[in-house]
Amino acid sequence: MVLFYSPAIEQDLTLPEDESVHCVRVLRKQVDDTIGIIDGMGHFFEAVITEAHPKHCRVRLVEKRLDTAGPFRAHIALCPTKNPERVEWFLEKATEVGIGGITFLQSRYSERKTVKTERMDRILVAALKQSVKALKPTLQPLIAFNAFVKQPFDGQKYICHCHPGDKPLLNSVCQPGTPALVLIGPEGDFSEEEVALAEAQGFKAVSLGDTRLRTETAAFVAAHIIELKNQGV
Amino acid sequence: MVLFYSPAIEQDLTLPEDESVHCVRVLRKQVDDTIGIIDGMGHFFEAVITEAHPKHCRVRLVEKRLDTAGPFRAHIALCPTKNPERVEWFLEKATEVGIGGITFLQSRYSERKTVKTERMDRILVAALKQSVKALKPTLQPLIAFNAFVKQPFDGQKYICHCHPGDKPLLNSVCQPGTPALVLIGPEGDFSEEEVALAEAQGFKAVSLGDTRLRTETAAFVAAHIIELKNQGV
Repeated sequence: MVLFYSPAIEQDLTLPEDESVHCVRVLRKQVDDTIGIIDGMGHFFEAVITEAHPKHCRVRLVEKRLDTAGPFRAHIALCPTKNPERVEWFLEKATEVGIGGITFLQSRYSERKTVKTERMDRILVAALKQSVKALKPTLQPLIAFNAFVKQPFDGQKYICHCHPGDKPLLNSVCQPGTPALVLIGPEGDFSEEEVALAEAQGFKAVSLGDTRLRTETAAFVAAHIIELKNQGV
Repeated sequence: MVLFYSPAIEQDLTLPEDESVHCVRVLRKQVDDTIGIIDGMGHFFEAVITEAHPKHCRVRLVEKRLDTAGPFRAHIALCPTKNPERVEWFLEKATEVGIGGITFLQSRYSERKTVKTERMDRILVAALKQSVKALKPTLQPLIAFNAFVKQPFDGQKYICHCHPGDKPLLNSVCQPGTPALVLIGPEGDFSEEEVALAEAQGFKAVSLGDTRLRTETAAFVAAHIIELKNQGV
């Protein structure tokens, strides 16, 4: 069944304009056709079209189901990459595999100072539909590294950087059952001051393995390791 | 140190034309400059430029070192995706994380019948340089599914498909220390006949987790799970 995204479907029983266009113009759905809807807040709906309007498609909800996937305990904080496409694939892949939240950091050596959250939101929604999930990861737009690491986080806190030092494998130290937040350094890495500040705030330096990874690869690999730890938990 | 790729460097002491252009024209390296070279067969070289020719840059090898990374035990066999870019990122990411071999399958419901191995080879080489590895994964161009699954493979053999059935998690059953081959279904999945044939050849059906993954995401996730199992082994 085709899935559509409508965050406020329970309130207004109407698909957003872009989803209405896709449903009615592109897929030629008609009155009485049944469609699937996700609200991004963890609910699947089965709905029947009551008005096949090409911009404001109206529906009647016939079934509501809670998404049983997750809980997804990985929270990844990374700096936007120079090439936005690289972070965009991280968003897509991490959503497919399962991630709880994503935060974009403004750190000293960040290559990019802005993020297009609207475009990122569309990528998250497409990945939700693709992987048949109804709960959208939280997406926190740019926040200063120093401010973010001082925020409370109820769970395990790790930092990945390339400075020398003895770092255990995330795959060895990460514990299942509780949320885990991992900070991923930018192309230019975190500064020594940033690493020291994070460690003072309780972040443990970890390694993702004996290889040099791109920022977005490291972010995905960290998210996947945490998800694997929590599989079947 | 900048890394260049030259498969036959020990024999001819010359960089290939594209690498010569990059070294001499783009980076303006000159006689007596020191560069790094990988041969894709597991060797790092430190070399000094003896002739800064823009098309046939000649060098003198001053050091040879074996790549200690790996052995990478993951072998992934997948069908080329409709959109080639999706398989290309799999190649890049899997090489960064560490993979032994990649095979492209021609299966009943494959979306695409051809692969551009030359372009893929360039992607592998770029990922090797990026992640500072000297051993290039083996890349086997298109082979018929039925022929491939009958080939001998000295290691664990798994198949990922979306047909119903009780499938253990790859992360639970995969054993470290021996190579592991995973077949990844195309967008249209493997046919029931293909699954039956593979199982008759000793492939065990496994799950990558409780989520629906795109072909290339599944391929990467499988490769990463096997690499994680073998970390520090």
